Amino acid sequence: MKTFSDDNSDRSYAMIGTGALGGFCGARLQKANLKVHFLLNRDYHHVRQHGLVVESPDGDFKLPNVQAYSSSQMSEMPRCDVVVIALKTTQNDWLQWRLPNLLKPDGVVLVLQNGLGMEADIARIVGSDRVMGGICFICSTKVAPGHIRHIEYDLITLADYAPDYRTVEISDRARQIGSEFERAGFLVSLTDDLLLARWQKLVCNIPFNGLTVVLNATTSEIMADSHARDLVEQIMQEVVSIADAQGCKIPPDYVQKRLHCIAKIKSFRTSMKMDYDARQPMEIEALIGNPLRVAQRAGIFVPQIAMLYQQLKFLDAYDRISALAG
Amino acid sequence: MKTFSDDNSDRSYAMIGTGALGGFCGARLQKANLKVHFLLNRDYHHVRQHGLVVESPDGDFKLPNVQAYSSSQMSEMPRCDVVVIALKTTQNDWLQWRLPNLLKPDGVVLVLQNGLGMEADIARIVGSDRVMGGICFICSTKVAPGHIRHIEYDLITLADYAPDYRTVEISDRARQIGSEFERAGFLVSLTDDLLLARWQKLVCNIPFNGLTVVLNATTSEIMADSHARDLVEQIMQEVVSIADAQGCKIPPDYVQKRLHCIAKIKSFRTSMKMDYDARQPMEIEALIGNPLRVAQRAGIFVPQIAMLYQQLKFLDAYDRISALAG
Repeated sequence: MKTFSDDNSDRSYAMIGTGALGGFCGARLQKANLKVHFLLNRDYHHVRQHGLVVESPDGDFKLPNVQAYSSSQMSEMPRCDVVVIALKTTQNDWLQWRLPNLLKPDGVVLVLQNGLGMEADIARIVGSDRVMGGICFICSTKVAPGHIRHIEYDLITLADYAPDYRTVEISDRARQIGSEFERAGFLVSLTDDLLLARWQKLVCNIPFNGLTVVLNATTSEIMADSHARDLVEQIMQEVVSIADAQGCKIPPDYVQKRLHCIAKIKSFRTSMKMDYDARQPMEIEALIGNPLRVAQRAGIFVPQIAMLYQQLKFLDAYDRISALAG
Repeated sequence: MKTFSDDNSDRSYAMIGTGALGGFCGARLQKANLKVHFLLNRDYHHVRQHGLVVESPDGDFKLPNVQAYSSSQMSEMPRCDVVVIALKTTQNDWLQWRLPNLLKPDGVVLVLQNGLGMEADIARIVGSDRVMGGICFICSTKVAPGHIRHIEYDLITLADYAPDYRTVEISDRARQIGSEFERAGFLVSLTDDLLLARWQKLVCNIPFNGLTVVLNATTSEIMADSHARDLVEQIMQEVVSIADAQGCKIPPDYVQKRLHCIAKIKSFRTSMKMDYDARQPMEIEALIGNPLRVAQRAGIFVPQIAMLYQQLKFLDAYDRISALAG
């Protein structure tokens, strides 16, 4: 029987989204001699002509020739072994009809997005045995079409998805993909508990993404102010309380450790703040709306996450109106 | 025995603070032939030379000659029957040593500020039998030195203060002052329950002052957005819950009535938003910090008011730093 792992020589990746994250991961995978196909939107013509440029503290590099596709050329894109979802979650509706045609029969969809619940949505399209999640801790930004600046960190946690986010033994498939990301220069960890990994990431993502937008502040400005820092901690504890009700046991010292860690690292603009400043839709539903609805269904009272959600929904709507008007 | 009310012919007012509120009230009182002394800060020289100008839908008027004093001329200011506190609460420390010298032996201090707890603070300076509170619903703004624009509304609720904000029978003194404000064109109501009146005002003041700043929005923009409007309602309910624990029974339909009313009135910039935009300190403690501490002492959980407080404290500190830097 031919298994996923036998097929290493032909292993191919489709990057669905070639922005700060998808462009960086895809470029590194191609540089590591993996076959990568890039789906692009606005930057298609530029990247088709000029390829990709990556600046990184680990070394700058150029890929003058990349397999670039526009969304109207989807039918020309070959089916791949690994379809990496690196779009903004606000664009996920787009995947519904297109995703099945991008995937080999034994291929897998790897969701690298931030937030909660995307794997379950993708599983409804391609089947739950063909979905993996990847939790990235990577700071990169797209500075121009096809030009990605990697700032720091290149950690990815990979896990297979199973229905209802049950824990599931780490598969050979996950190990193979993990080893390919390692070849491409990433620090990879594998876990059997995708849901726990997602909730752990949300502990930081919810307060910092939300408050950097609402308070128009950087992470370090927030950490330097005792009131804002206390608010971060309270919101983190609310996230922990939802995770706990889902059976995800986040260690009791996790919040303090994260705060300690964030106080030491360089200030950064969160992805939500970058989107807001660029007047792009913010990933409010995946990052905050979905966790909030999990809490509401479980009867967990998380008033400060609810308030953050309401504030962000207001700001997003108002920002969109301003963008249309301006 | 000479009582407060016998002395009508000589009745004198000191306006401590001659801004949007104090300037408007004082000018109207003087126009109604009451003797008014105005304490000024930055606008002293202008007002001493040119007097006060009031624009109002009820008729514009000028007072070319007013008794104006600068803070360095306090000793020249005569003791008055009614000392009206119309400063920002952020300046209340200033009153500690100066207030006793402004008050006739049988005089009274009338606190027209927004917020909670100011009367108790003033009572510690002049004695609790010499304090009254006034809850204003007046939209006015200072457009230039000595130039007040009254936009709409001229409602004042007056009440005597008693230790621990006990209810207290409406006094002759309160009736006298009320009738003088009526002569000056205000719509006056008297109440025996200062604390209830303060809490009722806070039901609107806390969410709208706070959220207009945090969301950089007008009251009507907030009311037009379902998420922000729901948040207003939740915060209003938290205010009601603190009031309730203080024995102040706000009617069950009060919140809905206020929301209904605010949805209909013209959009306005709240005083806190005006201060923030002008990079002046916001009245966070009087308006939100004091109610929050009452809740905390009573063991009432008000997480959304707490979050609003923390957000405003952050923005205030950051705004002050920017103001110093800029």
